[in-house]
Amino acid sequence: MIKAEILTIGDEILIGQITNTNSVWIAQQLNLAGIKVAHMASVADEENAITKAFNDAAERADFVFITGGLGPTKDDITKKIFANYFNTTLVMNEDVLKEVTDYFTKRGRELNDINRLQAMVPEGCTIIRNTNGTAPGMWMKKNNTVFVSMPGVPYEMKAMMSDLILPKIISENVLAHIYHKTILTQGVGETVISELVEAWEDALVLKNIQLAYLPQPGSVRLRLSSYGKDLIALQKNIDEETEKLKPLIGKYIFGYENYGEETPTLEFIVSELLRERKQTLALAESCTGGYISSLFTAIPGASEVFKGAVVPYTNLSKHELLQVDNSLFTTVGSVSQKVVEQLAKNVMKKFGSDYSISISGIAGPNGGTPEKPVGTVWVAVANKEKLLTHKFQFGDNRQRNILMTAAAAMNMLRKLILNLP
Amino acid sequence: MIKAEILTIGDEILIGQITNTNSVWIAQQLNLAGIKVAHMASVADEENAITKAFNDAAERADFVFITGGLGPTKDDITKKIFANYFNTTLVMNEDVLKEVTDYFTKRGRELNDINRLQAMVPEGCTIIRNTNGTAPGMWMKKNNTVFVSMPGVPYEMKAMMSDLILPKIISENVLAHIYHKTILTQGVGETVISELVEAWEDALVLKNIQLAYLPQPGSVRLRLSSYGKDLIALQKNIDEETEKLKPLIGKYIFGYENYGEETPTLEFIVSELLRERKQTLALAESCTGGYISSLFTAIPGASEVFKGAVVPYTNLSKHELLQVDNSLFTTVGSVSQKVVEQLAKNVMKKFGSDYSISISGIAGPNGGTPEKPVGTVWVAVANKEKLLTHKFQFGDNRQRNILMTAAAAMNMLRKLILNLP
Repeated sequence: MIKAEILTIGDEILIGQITNTNSVWIAQQLNLAGIKVAHMASVADEENAITKAFNDAAERADFVFITGGLGPTKDDITKKIFANYFNTTLVMNEDVLKEVTDYFTKRGRELNDINRLQAMVPEGCTIIRNTNGTAPGMWMKKNNTVFVSMPGVPYEMKAMMSDLILPKIISENVLAHIYHKTILTQGVGETVISELVEAWEDALVLKNIQLAYLPQPGSVRLRLSSYGKDLIALQKNIDEETEKLKPLIGKYIFGYENYGEETPTLEFIVSELLRERKQTLALAESCTGGYISSLFTAIPGASEVFKGAVVPYTNLSKHELLQVDNSLFTTVGSVSQKVVEQLAKNVMKKFGSDYSISISGIAGPNGGTPEKPVGTVWVAVANKEKLLTHKFQFGDNRQRNILMTAAAAMNMLRKLILNLP
Repeated sequence: MIKAEILTIGDEILIGQITNTNSVWIAQQLNLAGIKVAHMASVADEENAITKAFNDAAERADFVFITGGLGPTKDDITKKIFANYFNTTLVMNEDVLKEVTDYFTKRGRELNDINRLQAMVPEGCTIIRNTNGTAPGMWMKKNNTVFVSMPGVPYEMKAMMSDLILPKIISENVLAHIYHKTILTQGVGETVISELVEAWEDALVLKNIQLAYLPQPGSVRLRLSSYGKDLIALQKNIDEETEKLKPLIGKYIFGYENYGEETPTLEFIVSELLRERKQTLALAESCTGGYISSLFTAIPGASEVFKGAVVPYTNLSKHELLQVDNSLFTTVGSVSQKVVEQLAKNVMKKFGSDYSISISGIAGPNGGTPEKPVGTVWVAVANKEKLLTHKFQFGDNRQRNILMTAAAAMNMLRKLILNLP
């Protein structure tokens, strides 16, 4: 299997000024092409650091993808070090000079001496054309490792990579493939899942499959990966193992992310279920404060399935807007089964929706009592026939409680729509 | 100057499944503390790769910050390799075991064997408490390099770093200082700002101050940084330059982030203004879909100033819940000045609040007309005496339109509270 390394050059990553999205994108493209990324590094604009990174990468990788440090200003030194590393010098490349000149002429601008330096490249390197800018890409081989140097400007790098570099690599190499599938779960933490699937997990190594747990507040993703020459066989292998999870943790699985697709979110899955059924949703969210509403309305075309929400953050507004009996606040309190039942029924009526979710809880960090500590949350989901409620006990962290409540509530609704237990 | 390296362990970065935001955050914190980040790397969950990364880091850095690979599941192997690297073994730490047990007991859950493994740590390591989870941090020194291993879950790692690790490093070392101040603006883009401050910006280099523009949808932050031994002098220097911005771009400035503080968000600034005045807010947000409500309710203690919100995503619900005249929908349409005026007045009445924001617009990507293209948004802000409206024309991107509307609307409210033009 071909191994790659991604190397980012520039201080702006190291001082935390920008997030390294170039590396993420390159890693995705390489994985899709069946090239394994073995290492990623970010180094400063310093000669020793860059040279050391080149040497280390050559030991680990067949291909090294370098971004950044190719600009015409003085702090960009990659090209000089690149030439030194290959024991060569920078020479003026007439083809590149013509392209840089054309680039400026087209835009009605004069070429100055600094721009002209863009056409200086290491002698003997293969030029990768930059169709979106002036700094050319460079491809050079030393021993068994190919080094590809690209500009750090994302759209220049991406065009170069997609249109020229990847096709060149794929055409020159017979590549192995990687296949991924991710199982999305909600309801229990990763340790519970790992106990439930232990025997299955232990057997994966014999099937050449790797498993990774990817937890986030309210849900855990299980990613299966496998490498090989035959993509169809990889897919079959992983699909078979995925199938075996259903009897083990099926009730926690809410979806799958297939190879090359975006991760489907719970709100997207629920929205699609409603859209297929031409049904609609309304929300009464007290302790989540509009967060679930913002998730549903972030989806283009939300208005087809989403009628609206009330965030009744006070007892007065629970009564005034959604007709919760005032007597309940003094008897059972606003964080109670009875209050979420009334909220769920009445918000559905008010908005004329087919389904509703209602939530009342204590997000924290303050407001808890011995009977109802911080993290106590009541959730109801309803349609015209059914009304289901559940009491959750989450932790102390406000933001986490909101995220966990949202995931739990949306999954309760998904199960109600699908009539699942 | 102290040198640091940031090391991320885990396949999910290398396959491009997640963006490495932990490293960005750690780099920011270290730079603030005057610690130079010399290198960043991401390696796979493989013993040889991790050991090589440890060895390389030890050559370059005084401190190595490691995240990831500490979970209790089988794919996480950092802890074992960490122990090997220090020629020691994993032993059960009774203090950590007690904390893990307490963590589970509090949540009414049973401790299983896998959870118990969290309390196994390399013999002789200094434990860094995890106040938000079960995997402890570990601090060990070899020769002249300190290795700090932290969990990869962002909020667990951040609390550990801010509350325990950075204070420990700062108290044990005499550091050169960096001083930052960030000016927060809303209302115009970075190119407009850079034209308005051009002469001021050109003079900064003589004062040993660096400027960075940090744009995000709806606001632009200007960060001033300066290095030196004398923190008081750095602060005075930067405060003087900040003061000079007021006549240039004062009407766009909504706040400042001082050294070592969190960036104050618009919702936080507005909440504090309301809290000081013991006044309250309610929202009627149609096209932003609950997003502004979720921002206000994410702040601990929100219920003191936030009464609630309605997301009236249909004409029916605008009429039914907030008594907008039905005739307006056929005459001027729901995205209009008259509708946001009625929404703002009526939502204030319904919730009994002192202030309100109302919003109606076309977030896109569909739903536009020649008269009201995608990105047309009407915003109203009101109190008992005043009602101000403004029409915005944003772009085609749904998510961006929601973010830009939220920033603009909250800044309109801030100005109303402060009686600013």
